[in-house]
Amino acid sequence: MDEFDLIRRFFDRRLDAAGVAVGIGDDGAVLNPDAANQQVQVIDTLVEGVHFPEDTNPADIAYRAVAVNLSDIAAMGARPRWMTLALTMHDASEHWVEAFASGLFDAADTFGVALVGGDTTRGATLVVTVSITGEVERGTSLLRRGARPGDAIFVTGTLGDAAAGLSLLQRGEPDSELVQRFLRPTPRIDIGTALVAKASAAIDISDGLVGDLSKLLTASGVGGEIHLDKLPLSDALRQCAPAAQQIQWATCGGDDYELCFTADEDVVTDIDGITKIGRITAGRDLKCMLDGDVVEIDVSGYRHFQ
Amino acid sequence: MDEFDLIRRFFDRRLDAAGVAVGIGDDGAVLNPDAANQQVQVIDTLVEGVHFPEDTNPADIAYRAVAVNLSDIAAMGARPRWMTLALTMHDASEHWVEAFASGLFDAADTFGVALVGGDTTRGATLVVTVSITGEVERGTSLLRRGARPGDAIFVTGTLGDAAAGLSLLQRGEPDSELVQRFLRPTPRIDIGTALVAKASAAIDISDGLVGDLSKLLTASGVGGEIHLDKLPLSDALRQCAPAAQQIQWATCGGDDYELCFTADEDVVTDIDGITKIGRITAGRDLKCMLDGDVVEIDVSGYRHFQ
Repeated sequence: MDEFDLIRRFFDRRLDAAGVAVGIGDDGAVLNPDAANQQVQVIDTLVEGVHFPEDTNPADIAYRAVAVNLSDIAAMGARPRWMTLALTMHDASEHWVEAFASGLFDAADTFGVALVGGDTTRGATLVVTVSITGEVERGTSLLRRGARPGDAIFVTGTLGDAAAGLSLLQRGEPDSELVQRFLRPTPRIDIGTALVAKASAAIDISDGLVGDLSKLLTASGVGGEIHLDKLPLSDALRQCAPAAQQIQWATCGGDDYELCFTADEDVVTDIDGITKIGRITAGRDLKCMLDGDVVEIDVSGYRHFQ
Repeated sequence: MDEFDLIRRFFDRRLDAAGVAVGIGDDGAVLNPDAANQQVQVIDTLVEGVHFPEDTNPADIAYRAVAVNLSDIAAMGARPRWMTLALTMHDASEHWVEAFASGLFDAADTFGVALVGGDTTRGATLVVTVSITGEVERGTSLLRRGARPGDAIFVTGTLGDAAAGLSLLQRGEPDSELVQRFLRPTPRIDIGTALVAKASAAIDISDGLVGDLSKLLTASGVGGEIHLDKLPLSDALRQCAPAAQQIQWATCGGDDYELCFTADEDVVTDIDGITKIGRITAGRDLKCMLDGDVVEIDVSGYRHFQ
C-alpha cells in the first residue's frame, strides 16, 4: 500500500466540520475563516527518541502531537478549528498508520479540531509535525506580555505528573495514571477560553513551570514570587517519589501542558481547576519560596542544543 | 547558543507584514484574515537524503522548502500571506542556521509571505516542514476537479529541468542552470492567480507531469490526450541528454513545481509563460501521443513507500 492509499484509507474522513470548503485531497485545503475573529496559528514537532521513547504506541504519539499543539492554542485563549499534519515515518505498515490515525482522531474529536490536510514522507527518524489554526475574538488573545505587579500567578491542573510518568515509562513501568499524563496530556482549551478578558498574561507549561513562567515574566517586564508549598500535586505524584523529587518535577520537569497565567485574583473566582501559586512583583527576578526561605531551583527545563 | 537564541537571532525579524498582529515569540501567532476571502492552507515536508542530497547548501534547502509549499498555494490560485516553520536538525551551528535563514527569507521576500512562527527541534535526520496560509476570493480557488471534455491542457514554464538538475547534482556537477531549477524551483504564484475564474482545474507538478495530470483527470472524472512533442523543454535540457531521456524527465521526473491546468483555450490567450500540450477527453485514460502513435510512459513519478 503506497502513501496515497494510506492517506486515503486512514486520514481522509468525510468532513462536515464547520468552515471547511475543501479538505484533504487537493493541493491545499480551502477554509472559511470567521470574519469577526482573529486567527491563532501554532506549529509543534515531536521527534522519536527526543520527545517520546522509541517504542511508544503510535496512537499515543499521535494523540500527544495534537495535544501539545492544542495546548499552545489554549495558552492564547483561542478555540481550535483546523489542523494539518506532516508525518515523516520509517514504518509505514498499515497497522502502524491505522493506530496512529486512531490516536490522532481521538484527540481531534475530543477537542473539536478538523484535519484538513497533510503530507506524508519517508525518513529514517519518525517526526510528527502538527499545525493548528484557532480563532479568537478580535483583540482578546492571551499573550505572554501583560502581567502587572500585584497580579496573582495561577496554574491549571497538577504539576510534575508528566515528568514522573516519563521516568516510570523509562523504567519500564508503563501502566499508571502518571504515564498517561505524559502520553496523553490534556490541553486546557476550556480554561484558556474562559480566561479571555480575565487573565493579564498566559503561557503553557511545556518546558517546566520555572522556565516557562520566567519567559512570561521577561515578556511582561516584571518579576514574580511563587510558593513551592502551594504547587498543586496529584496524589499519584505524592505517592511515587520523595518530596524533593516531587518539587523538582513540578518546577522543572516539563511536558505537563498545563497553563500558567496571571490575573487579578478576584476576577477568576468562578474558574475551576486552577491554583494560585504566587504573585507578580515589580522586580525582574523569579523568587521561589519554601517555608519562608528563598530556594534555588535547578532550571533543567528541557532546552534543545544546550 | 541554544535553540531560543538561534531563533531570536536568525528568524525573529521585525514584522511589518500586513495582517500580523503578533508574530514570533508567543505561544502562537495572531493573524487578521481578510474577511472577504477564503483561506488556503498547505503543508509540505522535505527530508534530507529523500528530497535533497545530504550535502545540499542549507540556504538552498530552505529556499526549496518554501518554494514547494508556495507551488501548492499557486496551484490553488491563492496569494501567499503567512508561513510557519518546523525545523528538525542535527547541525545547529550558527553558520548552518544563518545560511538556512538567509535562504528562507530569500524565498519569503521574493514571493511576499511572512514567517510568523515556528518550532525548532533536535533530531538525527534533517526534516524541514513549512506550512503556508494563502488567501483567495471566496469560491474562486482552483481545484483538481472541474476539467471538462474539450478543455485544453496547459503547463507553465519548461518540464524536466529539475530531474536533469538532480541527476547532474548527483554526478557531482553542481553549477548549472538545471541544478538551480532543482534547488530553487519557481512557484508560479502570478500565473496561478491570473488563472482564477479562467482555469477549470489545476494541480502543481511535483511528482511528474503524467502522475500529477492523472490525479487531476481522476478528480475531474475525465480522460486526456497529450502530445509529447509539444512539451516545453528548455535549451539546457535539450543540450544535456538524448531525446528519450528528455521525454522521460519531462513526463515523469518530478520536482519541476510548474502548474498543469485545464481551460477553454480562448480565455487564457493573455497569459504568458504557458504551453498547450493536449486536450481533455470524455474517457477515463491519459493517452500520450508521439508522432501520431500512442506511447506507453513508465510512470516512475516519485511515490513514497512503493
